[in-house]
Amino acid sequence: MRLVQFCRRGAEGSVRVGVEGQSGVIDLKAFDPSLPSTMRKFLELGEKGMGCAERALSSGDCVVPRSDIQLLSPVTGPDKVVCVGLNYRDHCLEQNAPIPTEPIIFSKFPSAITGPYDDIQLPEESQEDDALAHVAGFTVANDVSARDWQMKKNGKQWLLGKTFDTFCPLGPALVTTSALKADVHNLGIRCLVNGEVVQESNTNQLIFKTEKLVAWVSQFVTLCPGDVFLTGTPPGVGVFRKPPVFLKKGDMVECQIEGIGSIRNAVV
Amino acid sequence: MRLVQFCRRGAEGSVRVGVEGQSGVIDLKAFDPSLPSTMRKFLELGEKGMGCAERALSSGDCVVPRSDIQLLSPVTGPDKVVCVGLNYRDHCLEQNAPIPTEPIIFSKFPSAITGPYDDIQLPEESQEDDALAHVAGFTVANDVSARDWQMKKNGKQWLLGKTFDTFCPLGPALVTTSALKADVHNLGIRCLVNGEVVQESNTNQLIFKTEKLVAWVSQFVTLCPGDVFLTGTPPGVGVFRKPPVFLKKGDMVECQIEGIGSIRNAVV
Repeated sequence: MRLVQFCRRGAEGSVRVGVEGQSGVIDLKAFDPSLPSTMRKFLELGEKGMGCAERALSSGDCVVPRSDIQLLSPVTGPDKVVCVGLNYRDHCLEQNAPIPTEPIIFSKFPSAITGPYDDIQLPEESQEDDALAHVAGFTVANDVSARDWQMKKNGKQWLLGKTFDTFCPLGPALVTTSALKADVHNLGIRCLVNGEVVQESNTNQLIFKTEKLVAWVSQFVTLCPGDVFLTGTPPGVGVFRKPPVFLKKGDMVECQIEGIGSIRNAVV
Repeated sequence: MRLVQFCRRGAEGSVRVGVEGQSGVIDLKAFDPSLPSTMRKFLELGEKGMGCAERALSSGDCVVPRSDIQLLSPVTGPDKVVCVGLNYRDHCLEQNAPIPTEPIIFSKFPSAITGPYDDIQLPEESQEDDALAHVAGFTVANDVSARDWQMKKNGKQWLLGKTFDTFCPLGPALVTTSALKADVHNLGIRCLVNGEVVQESNTNQLIFKTEKLVAWVSQFVTLCPGDVFLTGTPPGVGVFRKPPVFLKKGDMVECQIEGIGSIRNAVV
């Protein structure tokens, strides 16, 4: 089967999942209204969804002519867009790059996805006024890192060492900007391991403040409600200690920001 | 306000949005059943949602005692987790790193997020048997890159140069594994700019094949239905031409994979 996402012309906001047939695209939700209307939700159904799409295709029903639809990207809003660098042997040869011995993984944000016939927009310089007005609030994050993977492997792309499952504890609350009584750029910030302070600073040390970061990133990508920024790590990190210190099983890590709260995570 | 996501003990699968009160957490969906049950959807409501949360907080109703809830990460499943490297002045000083003149942006996958008191799991070596069985199908992608941003800026982290809005055209269809008549690792792959072939290879040049990539990445992160892999770029890329060639406004780019299809995107 050739599965697609599409919308009908004149109903551009309404995404549907379809399967390509001889004379057009079969609208799966028209065939079975219990089916979801996005590919991501459809794929979550697994074999059940695939079976239903096969029945729809054989039925010959619910066909929408190709002239009536606009094809979208087959998937939108995935959890991840995983990319692999230097993975064509002949592409390595053309640039005299050594053939990688392990995959080099990088990523794109899901917001970079566009449809098969949509325009690619070259970026323009943009301004973002009043960036803080787009910030719902503040929370505490622990930017857990596997330093070997971040610094020595994966072609020095940091992603893998940063993105293991559970490597981004967040919380305990989203403190709305109006509820934060103090200046968000003048708050004590600390990390404790097994009760001992290992990282300590103040958000007044931030080189680029929240509003600058939001404005900066929005030059490149459209920010969405719920997007999370980790604005930086204060000094004291284990990898720069002499000798270096790393988290190990059984450790208890606590991250605190004054006026926002504290998160506490066991390493297992 | 201090906004949270939580679940009630005994109903761990059921996420709710709440606001912290004096004697517990106010369950916003209990206060107003029309409110969504995830923070991302709640934030999409903007001021309307915030106003409703404020009324819930003042009402004194729908309070769940803290002992009855488990706090989750305040946001789950965002479109983006944007991270900033070397952003504490004192953290730069401790490692004798120059103070950045522009933010260094990297990312984590949303699947890395965990709750404020959840365990951080150190990764173990893992095996992924039968990786291809977890691949729904194949499509065509264009890994559009802003080479200056990828290679010369942003601390050599590739993310920004890769992730501008519209820099990931996908389609035209997700061709299910069973529908692909040919060997996916022996397909012609081409890129044309304004009708002229500029990149041409065969997927038999892939150094790491699909099943290896899926197994590799699943060592680090939990893959979800809908996740997208861009498995590599074949030779002929403009940046390595002499002189280098870059996409410009008005160009028409077409990417083709034999047996899968073709995507065609104007540069604007």
